[in-house]
Amino acid sequence: MTAVTAPLAAEEETASTTPGNLRNLTPVPAKDVTIDDDFWTPRIAANGKEAIPHQYRMLVETGRIDNFRAAAAKARGEEAEFKGLWFNDSDVYKWIEAASYLLGRGESPKLKAQVDDTIAAIAAAPPADGYLNTFYQIRHPDKIWTCLNMGHELYCAGHLIQAAVAHFQATGERSLLDVARKFADLICSTFGEGKRRGAPGHECIEMGLVDLYRLTGEKRYLEMAEYFVLERGKKPYIFENEVHPEGMSQHRFEPDYFQAQAPFPEQKEAVGHSVRALYLYAGAADVYAETGNPALWPALDAIWESLYLRRAHITGGLGSVAGIEGFGNDYELPNETAYNESCAAVAGIMWNWRMLQLEGDPRYCSAMERTVYNAFLAGISLDGKRYFYRNPLASNGEHERKEWYGCACCPSNLSRMLASLGNLPYSTSDEGIWIHLYMSGTVKTKYADLKIESEFPWKGIITITVTPKTDEEFSIFLKQPIMTRETLSGINGKEQSIFDSVPIEGYGKIRRKWKKGDWIETHLDLPLALIRANPLVNGNFGRVAAQRGPVVYCMEETDNPCPDGMIDYFAVRKRPRVKQEYIPSLLGGVMKITVDGTYPDMEKWPGGLYERATHSPQKKSLILIPYYAWNNRGPGSMQVWIRDTL
Amino acid sequence: MTAVTAPLAAEEETASTTPGNLRNLTPVPAKDVTIDDDFWTPRIAANGKEAIPHQYRMLVETGRIDNFRAAAAKARGEEAEFKGLWFNDSDVYKWIEAASYLLGRGESPKLKAQVDDTIAAIAAAPPADGYLNTFYQIRHPDKIWTCLNMGHELYCAGHLIQAAVAHFQATGERSLLDVARKFADLICSTFGEGKRRGAPGHECIEMGLVDLYRLTGEKRYLEMAEYFVLERGKKPYIFENEVHPEGMSQHRFEPDYFQAQAPFPEQKEAVGHSVRALYLYAGAADVYAETGNPALWPALDAIWESLYLRRAHITGGLGSVAGIEGFGNDYELPNETAYNESCAAVAGIMWNWRMLQLEGDPRYCSAMERTVYNAFLAGISLDGKRYFYRNPLASNGEHERKEWYGCACCPSNLSRMLASLGNLPYSTSDEGIWIHLYMSGTVKTKYADLKIESEFPWKGIITITVTPKTDEEFSIFLKQPIMTRETLSGINGKEQSIFDSVPIEGYGKIRRKWKKGDWIETHLDLPLALIRANPLVNGNFGRVAAQRGPVVYCMEETDNPCPDGMIDYFAVRKRPRVKQEYIPSLLGGVMKITVDGTYPDMEKWPGGLYERATHSPQKKSLILIPYYAWNNRGPGSMQVWIRDTL
Repeated sequence: MTAVTAPLAAEEETASTTPGNLRNLTPVPAKDVTIDDDFWTPRIAANGKEAIPHQYRMLVETGRIDNFRAAAAKARGEEAEFKGLWFNDSDVYKWIEAASYLLGRGESPKLKAQVDDTIAAIAAAPPADGYLNTFYQIRHPDKIWTCLNMGHELYCAGHLIQAAVAHFQATGERSLLDVARKFADLICSTFGEGKRRGAPGHECIEMGLVDLYRLTGEKRYLEMAEYFVLERGKKPYIFENEVHPEGMSQHRFEPDYFQAQAPFPEQKEAVGHSVRALYLYAGAADVYAETGNPALWPALDAIWESLYLRRAHITGGLGSVAGIEGFGNDYELPNETAYNESCAAVAGIMWNWRMLQLEGDPRYCSAMERTVYNAFLAGISLDGKRYFYRNPLASNGEHERKEWYGCACCPSNLSRMLASLGNLPYSTSDEGIWIHLYMSGTVKTKYADLKIESEFPWKGIITITVTPKTDEEFSIFLKQPIMTRETLSGINGKEQSIFDSVPIEGYGKIRRKWKKGDWIETHLDLPLALIRANPLVNGNFGRVAAQRGPVVYCMEETDNPCPDGMIDYFAVRKRPRVKQEYIPSLLGGVMKITVDGTYPDMEKWPGGLYERATHSPQKKSLILIPYYAWNNRGPGSMQVWIRDTL
Repeated sequence: MTAVTAPLAAEEETASTTPGNLRNLTPVPAKDVTIDDDFWTPRIAANGKEAIPHQYRMLVETGRIDNFRAAAAKARGEEAEFKGLWFNDSDVYKWIEAASYLLGRGESPKLKAQVDDTIAAIAAAPPADGYLNTFYQIRHPDKIWTCLNMGHELYCAGHLIQAAVAHFQATGERSLLDVARKFADLICSTFGEGKRRGAPGHECIEMGLVDLYRLTGEKRYLEMAEYFVLERGKKPYIFENEVHPEGMSQHRFEPDYFQAQAPFPEQKEAVGHSVRALYLYAGAADVYAETGNPALWPALDAIWESLYLRRAHITGGLGSVAGIEGFGNDYELPNETAYNESCAAVAGIMWNWRMLQLEGDPRYCSAMERTVYNAFLAGISLDGKRYFYRNPLASNGEHERKEWYGCACCPSNLSRMLASLGNLPYSTSDEGIWIHLYMSGTVKTKYADLKIESEFPWKGIITITVTPKTDEEFSIFLKQPIMTRETLSGINGKEQSIFDSVPIEGYGKIRRKWKKGDWIETHLDLPLALIRANPLVNGNFGRVAAQRGPVVYCMEETDNPCPDGMIDYFAVRKRPRVKQEYIPSLLGGVMKITVDGTYPDMEKWPGGLYERATHSPQKKSLILIPYYAWNNRGPGSMQVWIRDTL
């Protein structure tokens, strides 16, 4: 994710068209944010100390960086071999993006050298026209742009651009940006009305081009992004008759897998491959933010509702169907087979963050918050060394995080989000400052500097100290986090409700002339909520999920030994007693939950396989831990949706 | 299934070795049985009128019979093409077996001509040495016996022999028997100690060879069968380093897929591909029946217990895991993904029938009864025109019977069982006559002729009229059907309990000097039982299955409309009222069950995807129909295990 910053060159055409009646928030970039938070700082640190260095080693070991050197060798007429999967360049770009966020915070000469070496290899690879894709350059130089549906050239280009913008913003260096711009210029001169017709089979470049437009002010990048968003579903079918070159998947997916079943403005449902889809939706939101093209909003709105009212898991996990790594039908939300790729969680955050800036609508913030604390955070182990690709909501114990994947899109995607997390919590608007997520630390804005103190998500007391930069009145908007209840709030120690007058989980607004040292304090109750799924969700009926604030809980076998991985053996009792206990030594420090439960007394079972008998329930305390923290203590079965009856 | 009959030639060595302390029942062959039964006769008729003629058309249309003609052409040096899958010869053999049972009852000159034509094509195909497998003869004459694990040569040979024995017994003609014997002789001279080492990758020939031994008295066939049973799990691994010829599956399965993980006498669990496994177990039971080899019984006993106490579905469906078409771990009995191939139901009946003859133990009869009324009967539509390959216990409505399959093992397997159903209900022993299943009709035995009148499984009144052939005392053993309760029994109108003194679902024994016209009558209550699965069965916890006598019931969408195929939307209330009503016009006449149930009131659901809310239950009468009868009224969702709580 790239923060919006001032354009490189001020040109007349760069001013955004203001969309209709939207709130138009401006995100506060991570560089103006510090995070010093008991919950988040260890995760950000593990990302910097373990994940990003480990990913670099894997990029080197697996030949992903060598592919760029091989492309250069091939251009020199030497023998050259492409290693790995055809879209592996993107892993290198995403890693540079993640590493750049660290460099922006001034970290590690060693990392700087690794980034510089990698960029040098990349910069030496493109031919004179600027085209860059090592798989095609080495294996199929004669088949460039011939297989847009599965070739991933525009997808890799998108990641290249995002990485280049992040690298430039962090370091001020143009080494990668020049490569990306040259390739972007080639793309702009290749595709579009009156030129070659096309759209990416795997979206991503739409966001990248808008970032590049915002950075450079060059409108052609924005126009190219808008073209790609609008062209994909038009007739004739954009990927008709494409031949898949040797060395890539030969599978032919249906148009909706690529979100190419209809022109985007006519689309109403989240369909197909989830990461593709969410990158498109995020890119379309970017294009809408800059163009205000009225054709885009109804689709964005309808698709969001189809996703979050009917097709998303409680964890914010997106893309429930394994076969297509994508979205199923309404309410098709299986637990054990749920796909919920980690990349889709990252992409879900990216999309909601963009929708939130457009509208200031708390429902986008709630979706982002749900994903951040659950589906996203589950993707990476607490020590930063292992990753989930799939994120099911139930496991028989065979599902574990791994150090790497042949298709390694998720590790660096998780890392770039963690490394740029400071982009998420704050925005400003004409009215004032918006706080979306609570992380202890500071933020600098044009209205004021704020200091935030909180032990969220474990405790509900949040204190905000204000150092205003203006004598004018302005507002501070505070998001009421998911599943919390305000018990007491005040300003400068004087009781004043913040959330009473707003819709549940909305933004409370405090408007006043602020004085240095003014402080806001809110006490939020974080009860354990037993949540039910809409009865149309097959398989969750008669089950509850435990949620405390935004944190979804699960039962893990480690805490609840059960026969043969059968964690579903346990049920929550009706109206259970609940014990909440913060355990600093458990899983990096978590609020552990204990609830009354039951399990069947096997000694009273007659012994056969099928009997005219009852299952005599025995009492058992069930121990719940945050879903994001599961599989950090070895293999074991896990269950989010727990039966609530026996 | 082939009835035991007198040997063709009386040789010294043909007498069976009597195993230890077993009951040694002798099945009464179908030729001595008539079935004139409201439940069974329509099914047997549809099999003869629709299924068997349809299968013949398909064998012709798909080139399965032409393959034999092509093999003969190839032998003449002509061009020849093999069509279909490499084991398709077996479909032809199984169809001949099924058709022969019909011919044995004197039916249809047209069918006779079709059988004769088919046998003529088969008989013209083998080369001088008697080898017969059209795939190998046409495609890979140089690779005969080189790929026993997947080549299916011995599997097809087994079906050839079973068909030939059935055809000879039905018609007295040796046309197919001569082909089969010549091939069996080649196999006997090819494999064994001091000859080529081997065992079938797909079992079947073991049963065939014992049938051939029983028919001919030639002990080498029995010895060959015993060798195959005992050799398969020995070291070195029997299928090591085999190369799969082109044109067949190239997949390499693990040894337990082939039941070759250990020598048979050391095996203790039902493992691997279910049809392979069950054919092996049935063949081993045959070998044990004839040889009394004490090494075989402990394995048969342990495997049976592993299967029926831990790995079988309530319908008698066997092989719960789709990936291997086979057995899972203990208690791994998923509903919607259950494989439960129709062939495995047929094979399960075959095995239990054999175990029952050995031991007279009612648990084998109960397992057979459970399978006959549920997993087996579900395999074929009521009109005999369509077949299930898989038999899951829950469906979202996408699972339907089809008219044919590329791998069409199931249709003719179902048909040969239905056409020879008269083999199942009766046996004799030194003590008298055994009745295992209740079908109205007659049976002739050496002790007596019996007339059976019953409306089982719908009604529990069974009347048996005895016409003895001896003045000596003998016993009539009556099996108490599954899930029934004796309310009143009597002999010649005088009250006398039959089942009171025997274990539940055991054999009641009536021993006396019988007089012509003596009649036994028993009244069995058939209450609707709500059955629970062992709590270790994941996914069935908190659910019940409805069973009435041996008939397992299900909810089908047709009777219980539900949103989006979500039949799991409905739950049975605690202690529901039950209404039972025989509806002659419904599904060929079934006892329809209505029970009190509930469903969630969607109008009271707040509307979101995840809510802190309850599912308000609404009352609804749930309509249940027999599982075997589902999907006879168009597509729709179906559920056997119904939630019992809300």
